[in-house]
Amino acid sequence: MIDPADLLPEGLEDRLPHSAAAATRVERAVLDLLDAHGYDRVRPPLVEFEPAMVRRMTGMHTRHMFRFVDPASLRMLALRSDMTPQVGRIAATGLAHRPRPLRLCYAGQVARMVGDMLDPRRENLQLGAELIGSDGVAAAGEIVELAIAALEAAGATGISVDFTLPDSVDLLATHQSLEEATARAIRRELDSKDAGALVAAGGEGFLPLLYASGPFDHAIGRLAEFDTAGILASRIDGLRQVAARVAGRARLTLDPAERHGFGYQSWFGFTLYADGVRGALGRGGSYQIAGTDDAATGFSLYPDELVERLAAVEQRRDSLFLPLGHDPAQASGARREGWRTISALTADDDAAALGCTHIMADGAIRPL
Amino acid sequence: MIDPADLLPEGLEDRLPHSAAAATRVERAVLDLLDAHGYDRVRPPLVEFEPAMVRRMTGMHTRHMFRFVDPASLRMLALRSDMTPQVGRIAATGLAHRPRPLRLCYAGQVARMVGDMLDPRRENLQLGAELIGSDGVAAAGEIVELAIAALEAAGATGISVDFTLPDSVDLLATHQSLEEATARAIRRELDSKDAGALVAAGGEGFLPLLYASGPFDHAIGRLAEFDTAGILASRIDGLRQVAARVAGRARLTLDPAERHGFGYQSWFGFTLYADGVRGALGRGGSYQIAGTDDAATGFSLYPDELVERLAAVEQRRDSLFLPLGHDPAQASGARREGWRTISALTADDDAAALGCTHIMADGAIRPL
Repeated sequence: MIDPADLLPEGLEDRLPHSAAAATRVERAVLDLLDAHGYDRVRPPLVEFEPAMVRRMTGMHTRHMFRFVDPASLRMLALRSDMTPQVGRIAATGLAHRPRPLRLCYAGQVARMVGDMLDPRRENLQLGAELIGSDGVAAAGEIVELAIAALEAAGATGISVDFTLPDSVDLLATHQSLEEATARAIRRELDSKDAGALVAAGGEGFLPLLYASGPFDHAIGRLAEFDTAGILASRIDGLRQVAARVAGRARLTLDPAERHGFGYQSWFGFTLYADGVRGALGRGGSYQIAGTDDAATGFSLYPDELVERLAAVEQRRDSLFLPLGHDPAQASGARREGWRTISALTADDDAAALGCTHIMADGAIRPL
Repeated sequence: MIDPADLLPEGLEDRLPHSAAAATRVERAVLDLLDAHGYDRVRPPLVEFEPAMVRRMTGMHTRHMFRFVDPASLRMLALRSDMTPQVGRIAATGLAHRPRPLRLCYAGQVARMVGDMLDPRRENLQLGAELIGSDGVAAAGEIVELAIAALEAAGATGISVDFTLPDSVDLLATHQSLEEATARAIRRELDSKDAGALVAAGGEGFLPLLYASGPFDHAIGRLAEFDTAGILASRIDGLRQVAARVAGRARLTLDPAERHGFGYQSWFGFTLYADGVRGALGRGGSYQIAGTDDAATGFSLYPDELVERLAAVEQRRDSLFLPLGHDPAQASGARREGWRTISALTADDDAAALGCTHIMADGAIRPL
């Protein structure tokens, strides 16, 4: 029975040893992979002035962030809920003079004031990479390939990538010279995936976006057939090149009108899934760093669910008990060979109870 | 010229690539060392209910923490400023049934609402280890030895350990049956290290604590000479055993009346320093996990200054430019051999400007 005074707030949790070890393995594997591909890690602060947390990304807002007054400046601060805008700020300030493309990566805890139905967590581990200075097809291909490789390195299997074309509705609406009220109604009905309501709202020409979804090759073919005016032709061609680059490494699908979670993406976005992991593991796409000339492409992973899955299959590790009076030099030697050691503090310390599998006795290592 | 809207709040900073890489190296080196000594990492949340952040440690308070109302519970939350009480809570709850001694470690960002004169930072990286279930001499020795080894692994040199006996004043005051008002005045004058004021406050018998400071062997000898009644005898003996265990690995000093920063420590505490690093790098000692039978011993490092020092001497790393049309299999092979690669996105990408030292050409790796 836990004392109520020790309870954690809703949506906030401790990672105990198995889970924490899995989180550390995932974090290191992803960061090592990104580093090997030339992505430099940056570490922005936990807290910034509230407006700065969103100003580099169009379409973001701070209303779900934990906010509080700064006694030093008497201005509002916010606890970060997404590191991507922070990386955008770094690219626009401290690293503004570095040559492009600029490759940055990051890992850290983010928090939000409210969870949602699908994920009640209010704190997440976020890992990601941003390729700043390009939103072209080559950048998109590099980022999607890297996102898949990152998930593989983290231990995910059965990876799926669901592509979307976040600005396709806007492009088609502009082409058809729709009034803003009509365009808004069409976006709403596309979001709710209601074909009848879409037609009623005057969005018959947008039905292709609803029907051209599913397995990538089939769906992109349908989208191309419908797009007789070629409004989406460059995007369709781009997505095909990206898909060709990662074919065989992930299950690919298309949902061209999906906009949920793509508030700041421009022409291209994607969501990542893996076997046995409920919900999305991450997302990415192209965007503009507001107030700069920098286009960018990137992805973020939120691997908490994957970590739980990996933690559940964690194996017990060998460890070596060092009784009282052991030779410290021999103990150091064992650690250099890769042993994990547990030193006795008293003659009563119980090697087996402490999880040890081996013991150092008379200078030799023996199974317990 | 940075746009004022991008400025960070006072005491909060980005770590740019060199500095972030040094921080990551330090964090991994320390965590790997602790893991090899049997310490399991735990990862508590960034945010908890305000009272829970201090209830496991006597003498801590929340007044310097960032605090805000939780919309879910309508209760006050606090952003962590010290992970030690969180680890104490975990030991008292989720890991209450694990056998003792329980070895836990942690790493994460902590923040406080106000900096101080010596360190204006309001966010720090905290790394540490807690040995739960013992505050004896063997535990103290293990923790001090591990703290030194952790700093060595992190890249610190010229390490110093300054020992203190945090409850010595209370012990002597009890022995002399002093009134609480007198004891309080004596503590105050000892804190300001004012011998005249100490005598005036009726604390002549406490002068030894003031004079028995400096290099360890000399100071502990003086303290033992003064302690004719043997009030501190077991502590003096314990400290001597701890010092003997780490002799030659660090410069050792004693300041038996030092209490600053040891709000929750019991019989023994220590502060860590290293060459070229301004201010303390960490501290540790013995304490009680409030509301449990668990005594504990541990240390925390705050390596931000060390990270800056290491970042300043960072070497440029080799990296391999992969031109357009390179063979992806060869690129993967190079990464498996340890190469860091940077892929061209366009024919205009400039290998040298992007910091590359080598180029893959005709399937071979050549210096640029």
